[in-house]
Amino acid sequence: MISADRVESLDAPADIAAEAAAGIEGFLRAKAAEFAAISPDTAEIGDSLIAYTRGGKRIRPVLLWWGFQLAAGSELTPGSQARTGLAEAAASLELLHAAALIHDDVIDHSDTRRGAPALHRQFESLHASLGYEGDGEAFGVSAAIVIGDICLALSEELFESAQDRLGASVPAQRLRAQMRRDVMVGQFLDVRAEVIPLDDARIGERAWEVLSFKSAKYSVEQPLLLGAALGGADDAQLAALSRFGLPLGQAFQLRDDVLGVVGDPSATGKPAGDDIREGKRTVLIAESLRRMDREQADLLASRLGDPTLSAETVAETVAMLREVGGLDALEEIIADRHAAALSELSAWSGGNGAAFDLGEGARTRLTSFAETLSYRQR
Amino acid sequence: MISADRVESLDAPADIAAEAAAGIEGFLRAKAAEFAAISPDTAEIGDSLIAYTRGGKRIRPVLLWWGFQLAAGSELTPGSQARTGLAEAAASLELLHAAALIHDDVIDHSDTRRGAPALHRQFESLHASLGYEGDGEAFGVSAAIVIGDICLALSEELFESAQDRLGASVPAQRLRAQMRRDVMVGQFLDVRAEVIPLDDARIGERAWEVLSFKSAKYSVEQPLLLGAALGGADDAQLAALSRFGLPLGQAFQLRDDVLGVVGDPSATGKPAGDDIREGKRTVLIAESLRRMDREQADLLASRLGDPTLSAETVAETVAMLREVGGLDALEEIIADRHAAALSELSAWSGGNGAAFDLGEGARTRLTSFAETLSYRQR
Repeated sequence: MISADRVESLDAPADIAAEAAAGIEGFLRAKAAEFAAISPDTAEIGDSLIAYTRGGKRIRPVLLWWGFQLAAGSELTPGSQARTGLAEAAASLELLHAAALIHDDVIDHSDTRRGAPALHRQFESLHASLGYEGDGEAFGVSAAIVIGDICLALSEELFESAQDRLGASVPAQRLRAQMRRDVMVGQFLDVRAEVIPLDDARIGERAWEVLSFKSAKYSVEQPLLLGAALGGADDAQLAALSRFGLPLGQAFQLRDDVLGVVGDPSATGKPAGDDIREGKRTVLIAESLRRMDREQADLLASRLGDPTLSAETVAETVAMLREVGGLDALEEIIADRHAAALSELSAWSGGNGAAFDLGEGARTRLTSFAETLSYRQR
Repeated sequence: MISADRVESLDAPADIAAEAAAGIEGFLRAKAAEFAAISPDTAEIGDSLIAYTRGGKRIRPVLLWWGFQLAAGSELTPGSQARTGLAEAAASLELLHAAALIHDDVIDHSDTRRGAPALHRQFESLHASLGYEGDGEAFGVSAAIVIGDICLALSEELFESAQDRLGASVPAQRLRAQMRRDVMVGQFLDVRAEVIPLDDARIGERAWEVLSFKSAKYSVEQPLLLGAALGGADDAQLAALSRFGLPLGQAFQLRDDVLGVVGDPSATGKPAGDDIREGKRTVLIAESLRRMDREQADLLASRLGDPTLSAETVAETVAMLREVGGLDALEEIIADRHAAALSELSAWSGGNGAAFDLGEGARTRLTSFAETLSYRQR
């Protein structure tokens, strides 16, 4: 391996988020104009997508950006093809994510997203307010399925543009395909896990498969890898990013599992204990279940996935997960996964065979972001 | 324009269909093996997609193939990179189409597709037969949404592979993006048209927008253009293919409108008068409507989109469309669109400025295929 150039700094997450957000909105406005040339009836597509993509934590754009800076160096000249292409690639990941969330909310019958109505609910409301005919709920679902598809198609288009600017990279193209594939397969596994009886022997493995493919890889590891591949990373660098990104992504999603049952609704934008009513087969559920006696397990099975549960019963169920030690077990696993990520990071110090050589600024960015992913409150 | 090389022959549709089908199945088997490495619970994805993509008329692969042969010459050496790439591009279009149909059937609440249960119904049956938990209908819909997404992602992947083999072509990439975008926007317009009151002034224009973007361009014009772009066609050739493909695609979809109300269920694989119960706002409906008096129009409005209509009421409604002259009007428009396509074809004779120079074999293929598209019985 060639010795890595020192990466002194990584751009600030807020700046990357702002650049990605501007990229998304500009692109969607251009597309909305193209749609308008097809029919005036397309206006709701662009309007809804622009509003929908304004929220979010922008984790994937930040990680993609940093992956690129780690591989290609931290200097990104404003207005350069590389920077514009990188902003497009970052925006493309947000559109991929928006597409996944739009369909996810239909599948999970979720009413809210990022504190606002889910997209299918928005179209249901539109149906009512404009006095459209027929079944408003079905219209909302249909519109959300199609707009999710359009959003996915637009994400591809933007990524193709990014590749044109950055120079076609076979590893990046392969990673992009893998990323969009993995998140969807993970989503299928999630849908399927929810209909398997709770006493099935594979419940634990299955929860880890969903966690890794639907979230950990897709939200953290793969954005880093994709950015690095666009920046020309070699195989050893990609492997190092995986050793950092995968455990961190697992910690990130395990935290989501915790927040899904004990998160503050005003911070998470979702109802308290939402995952209980949805019947998600999370690692938290699997870890709790194996600490339960038969009676407790039957009680949990009878409640999980029942959308009509009262707030009291949800709270009682969460208390049960806590009492058997499920929540403590999750905190231990999160701490372990977080430590694995930091341990890899500590090796990026330019010594013999190190994949990266981090300056203090870059190291602080990564450490602090990892802390946020593993221990955030929302 | 450089003078076009004579294209003596075009490959037989059945041979192209067989080559595309083999390409689809081989690719899906390889992907199923990759999914199996993620989790044994993924088996249903590959199985269902392989079964689902076995049917269909393979119109798009044939047109893509011919577009390529028209632009690049009819000789395609077996086993060459060009031929393999072309088969992949053809297979990719079938996967894009399968993805659209899977979501379409969810949106239209269709129970059948190609004479077999729709994908969401298949997963609903699987849920029952395997004794899965929870709501089987919801599981079927969720699985179909996700598998449609996966199918779309796989279509992208296969097209990327085709481009790698055939050499990256910016016009082909742009056409591919436009094609997948147009069909989805057309689908949105279709969903939206169904909830607009029948007496809305734009009903006719709207029906033509849906027909052109959801079907005519996507099913006929764009496959031809995409194949030609992959084969290196120039702008004049692409424009000529549009002049042939767009009216032919319109005739193709107008025939679908006719078959959707008077088609023989044993031939179409769909219930008689299905479009009436689904409430599709077709050009046939618009043409019939403007020939109706107020009373007839109100009667039609009260029936269109009512899934509970009896066979008798459906038959009575179809008779009404016939009596007012709607079906005759459709036949006239089909004949006009068909003639427009043939008129363009007659110009492809190698004379001064002709975009293509067709030999008799090639001309017979195109003429006969056009006849099938416009005047098929199913």
